Amino acid sequence: MVAPLPAWPHPPGATVAEIGEHAIIAWIAAAAPLTSRADVIIGVGDDAAVVQPARNMVEVSTTDIQVEDVHFSWAHGTPETTGARALHVNLSDVAAMGAEPRHALLSLGLPATMPGTRLFGVLSGFIEAARAAGVALIGGNIARAPVLIIDVTLTGTAKPRKFLRRAGARAGDEVYMSGQAGAAAAGLAWLERREAGDDPGDAAIHGAVRRFLAPEARVALGVQVGRNRAASACIDTSDGLADALQQIAQAAGVGIDLEQETVPVHPAVGIVAARWSLDPWTLALGGGEDYELVFTVPKRARRRFLHAVRRSGLPPVTRIGQCVKTPGVRLLDVHGAVRPMPAGFEHFAAPGPNH
Amino acid sequence: MVAPLPAWPHPPGATVAEIGEHAIIAWIAAAAPLTSRADVIIGVGDDAAVVQPARNMVEVSTTDIQVEDVHFSWAHGTPETTGARALHVNLSDVAAMGAEPRHALLSLGLPATMPGTRLFGVLSGFIEAARAAGVALIGGNIARAPVLIIDVTLTGTAKPRKFLRRAGARAGDEVYMSGQAGAAAAGLAWLERREAGDDPGDAAIHGAVRRFLAPEARVALGVQVGRNRAASACIDTSDGLADALQQIAQAAGVGIDLEQETVPVHPAVGIVAARWSLDPWTLALGGGEDYELVFTVPKRARRRFLHAVRRSGLPPVTRIGQCVKTPGVRLLDVHGAVRPMPAGFEHFAAPGPNH
Repeated sequence: MVAPLPAWPHPPGATVAEIGEHAIIAWIAAAAPLTSRADVIIGVGDDAAVVQPARNMVEVSTTDIQVEDVHFSWAHGTPETTGARALHVNLSDVAAMGAEPRHALLSLGLPATMPGTRLFGVLSGFIEAARAAGVALIGGNIARAPVLIIDVTLTGTAKPRKFLRRAGARAGDEVYMSGQAGAAAAGLAWLERREAGDDPGDAAIHGAVRRFLAPEARVALGVQVGRNRAASACIDTSDGLADALQQIAQAAGVGIDLEQETVPVHPAVGIVAARWSLDPWTLALGGGEDYELVFTVPKRARRRFLHAVRRSGLPPVTRIGQCVKTPGVRLLDVHGAVRPMPAGFEHFAAPGPNH
Repeated sequence: MVAPLPAWPHPPGATVAEIGEHAIIAWIAAAAPLTSRADVIIGVGDDAAVVQPARNMVEVSTTDIQVEDVHFSWAHGTPETTGARALHVNLSDVAAMGAEPRHALLSLGLPATMPGTRLFGVLSGFIEAARAAGVALIGGNIARAPVLIIDVTLTGTAKPRKFLRRAGARAGDEVYMSGQAGAAAAGLAWLERREAGDDPGDAAIHGAVRRFLAPEARVALGVQVGRNRAASACIDTSDGLADALQQIAQAAGVGIDLEQETVPVHPAVGIVAARWSLDPWTLALGGGEDYELVFTVPKRARRRFLHAVRRSGLPPVTRIGQCVKTPGVRLLDVHGAVRPMPAGFEHFAAPGPNH
């Protein structure tokens, strides 16, 4: 006997925007339970799904849709960076599961009037990035669409029990992040606010713009940490550092104390914030698209973790806080006092049912 | 040493529409060769890709993007049929590989103003169809988009050497198809041309409309034929019967003689053709979206094939022609004389380099 689908818990007039992504995913997760197939280990709600097609391996799969004028714009990036980016946002999800990326499917929605040379650039950027990552493009789909749509599905593999999930943090675990926070947000702010003829000039701005337009997923880092079982949880910062911490805390029913002074903020954040009077902590904690990895590490696994990080090469990781029993994510100053979250992030302190 | 990507063989000013889907896919196939990973068995260009993650199994994966007002329209279908359809077009690709469908990823592009109840209908239709097919929805992605975009990735599994590929037909093989040709094209013609208050009335029209709005992929049929190694090639008729035959012929370097009088044409084709003075053979041979399966069957496998068909239950299959040495697809009348292809299909007789 098949259970009926859960009811739609929203008023009849509510639009998709009013309901919100989190509530939509929550309904899908309830309607598509894990138990529907015995070989599904992780279903809806993590960075990627995990299935076990054979006894000695698990397969991770993720998909990410990029829409022209929503996720990318020809005003900023080139066709090549746009193609590479479409792969890297998926590589980041596979890396956050500690899996080695293997196969990609590329689904394209193309406007009929799109110049072929632009498509060539997108495809070249995607395929070059796939080659560099050891990923085989094995198939896909082409359709007409009103704007360019690039939807990538990426699979990867890991050994059973040697992948990283979002849920798994325990009170006492230390929290680490790779790279620097706010780089992409600072890069985007610069691209959107610069005046005609404005040159990045500064190497920090240049790096931040690059990080936004052509992110580099932390694949080797995720694979090493997963293979060495050196973290209790992992997530990428595609939706920003504050959101990543919130997701990790909520998935495990723990809290996270984020030690503000230890967060490695990208140097462009301060420059951009000063020039246009923006709040640097909103950029650093709230800005998405960095595609860094956040790990929680049990104290007993600390040496193993740092060893795995060194083996993976760049980027370095930084300890930024600790998991605690009290739910919620708190920002602590250097004296351990709770600071207010930057504007827009107060709701992270006391998560509601759909967040 | 990595080889450079192939050059873009089109004039700088050519648009995507001028270049065409086949030429784009041909470039991608050349730029993303099979050899990029040892575990890839079938890459770009079949109904689905095939990889071998473990010794005793292969995994088939496909993706299909459906765009509002391109592939579906609220003027015709309901949210529920639209969601179910998005799964079935992918089920059909997995069925055409002879694989058992297993896991789906659902990637959605949502307009902010889309009513939540409409999304609920789409999700319900998709998930109910997935349950019925034994498919687990394991993940996905939600993004903003100017129109509704439903991109599904579906994986399935088969035993090594027990899946069906597009390439493999040999001269002398018989050609079979499931169900009836032209149903979806007739249904769409009726939906687009009916006048206000027009009722299907006729059961044939009703069935054709249903076939267009809510196709049923021939999963059990594909699985049985694959498992019994009862066909030398298989493809679905998503782009129409003539295109399917052309793809099979070209992939194997053979020709196909299609015996016109044996093609099982859906009864709505004649009704619609008579009412609006349309060419019935254009609908039957050229009309896409039927999602029937076309097989080529070696004579020695004929009994095994028909046995597999019976085991799969409905729909019946019909022998519609034969593979021959001379390349190209020809339409033969009951006396064996070559007839002209319906308007728009002449180019199938002598395929060009990109077709």
